[in-house]
Amino acid sequence: MQFRKIINDPVYGFITIDDELIYKIISHPWYQRLRRIKQMALSHLVYPGAVHTRLHHSLGAYHLMRQAIYELKGKGIDITPEEEQAAKITILLHDVGHGPFSHALESVLIEDVHHEELSILIMKKMNEEFGGGLSMAIEIFTDKYPKKFLHQLVSGQLDVDRMDYLTRDSFFTGVSEGVISYSRILKMLTVYKGELMVEEKGIYSIEEFLISRRLMYWQVYLHKTVLCSEMMLVKIFQRARELAASGDPDVKPDSVLGALLFNELQGSVRDNLALFCQLDDTDVTAAVKIWGRHKDPILSLLCNAVLNRTLFKLKLQAEPIDPVEISKRKRAIKDLFPVSDNDLDYLVFTGEAENSLYDPKEERINIVFRDGTVKDISLVDNALIHQNLSLAVKKFYICYYKPE
Amino acid sequence: MQFRKIINDPVYGFITIDDELIYKIISHPWYQRLRRIKQMALSHLVYPGAVHTRLHHSLGAYHLMRQAIYELKGKGIDITPEEEQAAKITILLHDVGHGPFSHALESVLIEDVHHEELSILIMKKMNEEFGGGLSMAIEIFTDKYPKKFLHQLVSGQLDVDRMDYLTRDSFFTGVSEGVISYSRILKMLTVYKGELMVEEKGIYSIEEFLISRRLMYWQVYLHKTVLCSEMMLVKIFQRARELAASGDPDVKPDSVLGALLFNELQGSVRDNLALFCQLDDTDVTAAVKIWGRHKDPILSLLCNAVLNRTLFKLKLQAEPIDPVEISKRKRAIKDLFPVSDNDLDYLVFTGEAENSLYDPKEERINIVFRDGTVKDISLVDNALIHQNLSLAVKKFYICYYKPE
Amino acid sequence: MQFRKIINDPVYGFITIDDELIYKIISHPWYQRLRRIKQMALSHLVYPGAVHTRLHHSLGAYHLMRQAIYELKGKGIDITPEEEQAAKITILLHDVGHGPFSHALESVLIEDVHHEELSILIMKKMNEEFGGGLSMAIEIFTDKYPKKFLHQLVSGQLDVDRMDYLTRDSFFTGVSEGVISYSRILKMLTVYKGELMVEEKGIYSIEEFLISRRLMYWQVYLHKTVLCSEMMLVKIFQRARELAASGDPDVKPDSVLGALLFNELQGSVRDNLALFCQLDDTDVTAAVKIWGRHKDPILSLLCNAVLNRTLFKLKLQAEPIDPVEISKRKRAIKDLFPVSDNDLDYLVFTGEAENSLYDPKEERINIVFRDGTVKDISLVDNALIHQNLSLAVKKFYICYYKPE
Amino acid sequence: MQFRKIINDPVYGFITIDDELIYKIISHPWYQRLRRIKQMALSHLVYPGAVHTRLHHSLGAYHLMRQAIYELKGKGIDITPEEEQAAKITILLHDVGHGPFSHALESVLIEDVHHEELSILIMKKMNEEFGGGLSMAIEIFTDKYPKKFLHQLVSGQLDVDRMDYLTRDSFFTGVSEGVISYSRILKMLTVYKGELMVEEKGIYSIEEFLISRRLMYWQVYLHKTVLCSEMMLVKIFQRARELAASGDPDVKPDSVLGALLFNELQGSVRDNLALFCQLDDTDVTAAVKIWGRHKDPILSLLCNAVLNRTLFKLKLQAEPIDPVEISKRKRAIKDLFPVSDNDLDYLVFTGEAENSLYDPKEERINIVFRDGTVKDISLVDNALIHQNLSLAVKKFYICYYKPE
Repeated sequence: MQFRKIINDPVYGFITIDDELIYKIISHPWYQRLRRIKQMALSHLVYPGAVHTRLHHSLGAYHLMRQAIYELKGKGIDITPEEEQAAKITILLHDVGHGPFSHALESVLIEDVHHEELSILIMKKMNEEFGGGLSMAIEIFTDKYPKKFLHQLVSGQLDVDRMDYLTRDSFFTGVSEGVISYSRILKMLTVYKGELMVEEKGIYSIEEFLISRRLMYWQVYLHKTVLCSEMMLVKIFQRARELAASGDPDVKPDSVLGALLFNELQGSVRDNLALFCQLDDTDVTAAVKIWGRHKDPILSLLCNAVLNRTLFKLKLQAEPIDPVEISKRKRAIKDLFPVSDNDLDYLVFTGEAENSLYDPKEERINIVFRDGTVKDISLVDNALIHQNLSLAVKKFYICYYKPE
Repeated sequence: MQFRKIINDPVYGFITIDDELIYKIISHPWYQRLRRIKQMALSHLVYPGAVHTRLHHSLGAYHLMRQAIYELKGKGIDITPEEEQAAKITILLHDVGHGPFSHALESVLIEDVHHEELSILIMKKMNEEFGGGLSMAIEIFTDKYPKKFLHQLVSGQLDVDRMDYLTRDSFFTGVSEGVISYSRILKMLTVYKGELMVEEKGIYSIEEFLISRRLMYWQVYLHKTVLCSEMMLVKIFQRARELAASGDPDVKPDSVLGALLFNELQGSVRDNLALFCQLDDTDVTAAVKIWGRHKDPILSLLCNAVLNRTLFKLKLQAEPIDPVEISKRKRAIKDLFPVSDNDLDYLVFTGEAENSLYDPKEERINIVFRDGTVKDISLVDNALIHQNLSLAVKKFYICYYKPE
Repeated sequence: MQFRKIINDPVYGFITIDDELIYKIISHPWYQRLRRIKQMALSHLVYPGAVHTRLHHSLGAYHLMRQAIYELKGKGIDITPEEEQAAKITILLHDVGHGPFSHALESVLIEDVHHEELSILIMKKMNEEFGGGLSMAIEIFTDKYPKKFLHQLVSGQLDVDRMDYLTRDSFFTGVSEGVISYSRILKMLTVYKGELMVEEKGIYSIEEFLISRRLMYWQVYLHKTVLCSEMMLVKIFQRARELAASGDPDVKPDSVLGALLFNELQGSVRDNLALFCQLDDTDVTAAVKIWGRHKDPILSLLCNAVLNRTLFKLKLQAEPIDPVEISKRKRAIKDLFPVSDNDLDYLVFTGEAENSLYDPKEERINIVFRDGTVKDISLVDNALIHQNLSLAVKKFYICYYKPE
Repeated sequence: MQFRKIINDPVYGFITIDDELIYKIISHPWYQRLRRIKQMALSHLVYPGAVHTRLHHSLGAYHLMRQAIYELKGKGIDITPEEEQAAKITILLHDVGHGPFSHALESVLIEDVHHEELSILIMKKMNEEFGGGLSMAIEIFTDKYPKKFLHQLVSGQLDVDRMDYLTRDSFFTGVSEGVISYSRILKMLTVYKGELMVEEKGIYSIEEFLISRRLMYWQVYLHKTVLCSEMMLVKIFQRARELAASGDPDVKPDSVLGALLFNELQGSVRDNLALFCQLDDTDVTAAVKIWGRHKDPILSLLCNAVLNRTLFKLKLQAEPIDPVEISKRKRAIKDLFPVSDNDLDYLVFTGEAENSLYDPKEERINIVFRDGTVKDISLVDNALIHQNLSLAVKKFYICYYKPE
C-alpha cells in the first residue's frame, strides 16, 4: 500500500502528500510552528477572513509545485523523481524562517537577518536530522542546482509562491478581483534553453496576473488601515525596547520574545535557532495584551488601539508629507495633554509605500513564441506591460493619533 | 400577497421578479424567442459550455440593474418607483432585436437595420400591447429621459449589459481570468452632477474590468477558431443568396429565413416585425444541415465543415495579409480540384479584427474624488489606462480551406 | 512533443486530451452531433442556464474517468495503458446513441430500440473506421471485459456518468443543493475482490450523494413545469404521426425526422445508422416551429404552447388521479369549444413519475471496512439509507389545457 | 449622506452595515475580542483552513438575518425598523459570551455559567453603555418578545446562527459536501400563526440541510483528531489546576487566565465581566506554550503534543469501551515508565460523542402547505427524516498516549 495523505483545502479542493519524507517534514515542530503565524499579519482588521496561516500557504504552494511539475513532465521536460521531491521540499520550506507579523516585525525582532537566511539555516539543521534528505532542496533554494528552472519555480517572477499567495489571499479576503488563473498559467509554463518561460498563448493570463497583483497591493496589502495597524505594531515594539533599555522590568514578556527584545541571546542566530523557532503570533499578541495594562501611557495607548481596533488615522498621498502638516498634527496632540518630543514620534509618524507593476530589469517574464523567438513580456507587440508602467509607484503616508 | 417569482441562476444565485408588468414582458413570445438565440453564437465550438442564451443574459443584466438601483438609492440618489421599473424594462429588452448568430449574421440577414433599431421597433410595438407601460423605458433607451444616468446604466462604458455579459461569458466559457467583480463595481457607482461615475476607491476594480474585457476579446470573442467559424457562416449565407439569385429553388429554407434570403418581404422592417420575431438559431442551423446535403459543392463543403467542426485554417497576425500569401493559398486549392475564381473567394478570404482597451474619446469612465474633483480614468495619477494604451489594436487574418 | 489538447470547462477548470485516438473520436461527426443535443431537454424552461449539451456532459464524464483511474492507480490497482484508454473511450461514447430530447422522445422517435443499443451499434461502426481501436471499449461497455470494475465505473450506482451529470446539471441549473463532492467520492473509491467499492471514510459523502440525487429528481428532473413541457412534446409527436397516418402531407418535416415519423425507413436501425446520426434538437425544434403554423388546431396549439412557454397546467400528487377530475377537466374544455373525444386526450392526460432513493436489490454500493468486511451501504450501522427508504416514491400527475 | 460600511466576506461577497448603533456595537472592545477566538477551536489541526473567528461568524449570521428580514418583509410579514435593528443586534451578540476554545474549555474555565448566560450579562452591560438601545434585542434573545419568530430566527432549528456556521465552516474547512443552500432556505421561510415556518417547496432543501449537518458533525466537528486534541486540551487545564491546587507557583499564567485557574476572583461572574472579557485564544495558547517547558512531565507532555500535533491515539466505536482495553492501554504505558494511577488518567481516558439527525420533540421544523396545513417535517409524506432516524447516534471513544 502506497503512502498517501489527503488534506482538505478550500482553495484547491484536496492536497495530496504521497511521500514519507515530505510528510515527516510537515510533521516537524518547526514546520508546525507556521500554524501559529498568520500569512497576512493584521490584514484581518480590514478583511476578517484573512486569518489563514503560513502553514496553509506553504502547503498550497507545495500543491501548485506538484501541478507545475506534472504539467512540465507532460510536455516532455526531464525532471527526475529526486528533483521532483527536492523541488516540493524547497517550496514547503521556503517561508519556514518567517517570524510573527513579518514583514512588519521582521527587522524589529531579529535585526540584520533576513527571513530567507533563516529559512536556509533551518533547512540545513533539518537536513542533518533527516540524514541529508534535504541537500538537493537546499541547492535549489540557493540557486546552485544546475537546472535553473527549478529555482525559478520556487523564487522568480512567476513562481508558485506568488501564485499561491495571490490566489489564497484573494480567496480569504474575499477580494475576488485579485483571483488569478493559476491553473491556466501553470499549463502555459514551459522550459526553454533551461529557463522557465511562458508559451505565447499565455500572454493575456500573465497580464491579468500582474494587474491582479497590483490591485492586491493597493487594495489589500497596502490598504491604509492595514498599513496603519502594522506601523503601530512596529511602534509598540520600539517603545517596549526603549522601556527595556531604560531598565523597566515590567515590560519583559514571559516568552522567548523577552530574550529577543532585551538582546539577551548569546551568540549568533544560528546558535539560537531552536529558540527562534518557538516564536509565533501568540507571543506578540500576548505581549500586546499585557502591555495594554502597562503603566507607560504611550505603550498602553498603542497596544489597546491595536487590540480594540481604535487605530490612528492614516493619510496616503502621491506627494511627500508636508512638514507643516506633521507639526500641525503634533501640536494638536500637545494641546490635549503634555507629551515629550520623543514620545510624540510614537503618536505622529510618516513613511512610504511602494509597488511596481513589473520591473523588466529585475524580474523577467520571458514569452517563447512558436517559432522559438523569446521576448520579455514588456517588449511584446501591443504589450500592456511596457516600460513606462514598469516604474514603481511610490506613495507617502502620515499616521497620527486622533482622540475621538 | 405580493407578486413574486424566483429564477435560479448559476451566476447570481437567484433572480427575483416582483413586478407583474415585468413578468408579462418576460412571458411575451418575442422575449421568449431569445431562449433560442445563443449569446455567443459559435463560440461553443471552442468553449463547449458557452451555449447560454440571450434570454439568460438579459435576465442577468436585469438582475444587475436591480442591484445597481438598490445601491444608488442606498446612497440617497433619487429614483422613483416608475423610473426603477422603466430602467429594468429597458435593460430586459435592450437586446430583444438581436437576430440569430449576430454579430456574424446581422448585416447578412437584415441589411441596413441595426439590432438596436429593431429593439426600439419591438419595444414600441409591445408598448402598444401593454397600454403605454413601456413609454418611459423607450425614453431611457433612446437617451431622451432627463436623468441621463439611467441611460448610462443601460448603455455606457460601465453599463450592466457589459457587466453581465463579461461575467456570464467568462462563467460559461470557464475562462476564469475574465471574471470581474461586478458586485464591487456596482457598490462603487454613484451619480454626480447627473452623470454616472465611479468613486475613487473603485479605480483598481475598473482597471481590472478593462483588462478582463481585453482578455475576453482576444482569448474568447476573437479566438481564431471562433472567428473562423463565424466568418464561414457568413460565407454560407452569401453563397446561399448567390444560389438563390441564380434561381436555385432547392436552397430556400422552409422557414421565415427563406423569405429574408430571397428578399421576398414586402414593405419595411417595421411592417414585417412579427415575421422577423420568428427568426432564431434553429432556422439557421436547420438550413445549414439541409444545405450540407445540397448539390452545390461550395455550399455543402462550408456547411458540413461548420456542422462537423472540420473548420478552415485561420492565421491571425499584426500585419496585413500579404497578397502573395493569398495567391499561394488559392493556387494550392486550384491544384487539388477545378474551381472558378468567384468560388475561390469562398475558400480563401481575409479580414480584420479590432479591439481597443479604452477609448477616452468615445467612452467616458469618470472617477469622482472625495473632494468633488472629476477625472477621466485615463487621466488619474499613475493610471494604468492612459492615452497610448487606449489606441485600438487591429489584427489581420486569412482564412482558407485546407483538406487533410 | 506529446499530443495534448486542453478544453476549458466551467465545472472542472480544464479537460485534458492527451491521446490521439481519443481526439479523433471526439472529432468524429457522430460525436460532434452531441453538440446539438441538450443534456436536459426542456428543463431550461424552468432553469434558464440548463442548456448544456450531451457533448459537454460526455467530455465531463471522460474527465472524471481520467481522475478515477489516476486515483485507483495511485492505490496500486493494476490498470494497463490499454485499459485506461478503453475505459476513457467507453465513457466518451456511452451516450452517443441518444436522440434529441430523450428521455421524452426516445420511445416516440425510434420504437423498440434503447439508446444504449444505439450507442453499441455506433461504437461498433466507429470501431470498423478506427481499425479495431474500440474493441476493448465495447467489451467494457457490454460488461464482457474481465475487470468488472471498469464497467462499474461506466455504468453502476457510483459511475462517473452519474457523478458528472449530477455535478453538471446542478452547476448549470444553479441548484446548489444538488452539488456533490465528486472529488472526495473519487478519492474514496477502491477495488476489492475485483469490484468497485467505497472506503469506510466515504460513507457520509455517499449519503450526501444519494440525497442530492433525490433532490435533483424532485426539484429539477421531475419539476412539474419540466414534466409538463416534455409530456406536451410527446403529445406533439403523437399528433404529428396521427396526422401523417391520416395522409396529411403538410406535416412532414424537411429533415431526417420526416422519414422517421412516416415510418419510411427501409430495413433495421443498423442499416439506417448514418441517417439516425443526423438527428438532433434542431430537427425537433424546427418541426415544432413549422407545426406552430399548421392548420390542425391541436397540433398548432401544442406547438405554440411549448415554443412560447404558455404551458398546460400540471398537478402532481401522491394518489392516483381521480377519474372524476379527469372528466371534469375534459368537460371544461368541451364547454369552451367543440372537440372530439380523441382530440381531448391531447388536451387532458395523466401519467406517473417515480424515483427511488436507493434500491439495494438492483444497485449495490459496497463499503469496504478497514478490516476487510464488506457491507451494502443500507446495512451499515446507523445507516441513513435503509430498507424503508429504499422504496420507490411514485407520484401521479394530470396535465390539462386551461386557457387564460 | 447615509451611514454605510462595507466588509468583504469570502462567503457572502459583501456585508453591509448601515446603522450607526450596530457599527458602534461592532466597534466595542468586547465584540472585537471575538477576533481572537477561533470559531472551530482546534479543528485546524485537521482542516488547515478552519482558522476563522467568532467575529467573522457573527458578522455572517448578522448578514443572513438581514437577508431573512428582507425576504420576510417582501412576503408582507410585519417587521418594524426597531424590530429589524433589534434582531440584527441580537444575532451579532448571540455568541459574545463565548470564551476561548469553547466548547472544549467552557466548563473548565468558568464553571456553572453557560456561554449564553454570559452573552446576556454582556448585552445588559452594553445596554447600559448605549443608553437602552439593546433592550429589545435582549427581549428577543431571552424569548420574551411577543413576536416569537424573531427569537426563532436567532435560536431555533433553522436559525441564521446554524445557517451561517454550517455554511462558513464548510467553506473554510473545504468540506464541500457540507454546503447548504442558505439562500434558498431563506427564500422558503415564512411566518404563519406567529411562528417561523418553511414553505412546502422548501422540503428538499431542509432535508439536504439536515443531512449536511449530520455530515459536518461526524466528518468535522467530531473528527477523531479534532476530538482527541480538544480532549487533550481539557486534560491540560485539569492538570494545571491540579498543580495549582498543590501549590505549584510556576503554573500560573501571566494573564487573566491565572486568576480564573487559581479561583482567585472575588464575587460573581457578573462582578468580573470586564475581566472575563479579556480572555481569548491567545491566553490559552500562550499558557500551553509556557507549560510545554514546565517541569511536570504530564503537563509538558500534553502541551507539546497539542502544540506540535503529535497527538494521542483516539479510537471511536459504536459500543462502550471495554474496561479490559483501558487496563491494557494503561499497563502498556506503565511498562515504559513509572507513573502513578492518578497521572495515568491523563494519558488514557474515555468519553462519548453524540449527534442526532433531528429531534422532533425538541426541535420543530414546521412545513406550511399551500392549503394552510402545518406538519412537522418528520411527518410529511415520504419524509426522509422520520421517527427512527431522529434517534441520537452515540459513539464511544478511548484516547491514549502511545509513544512512537
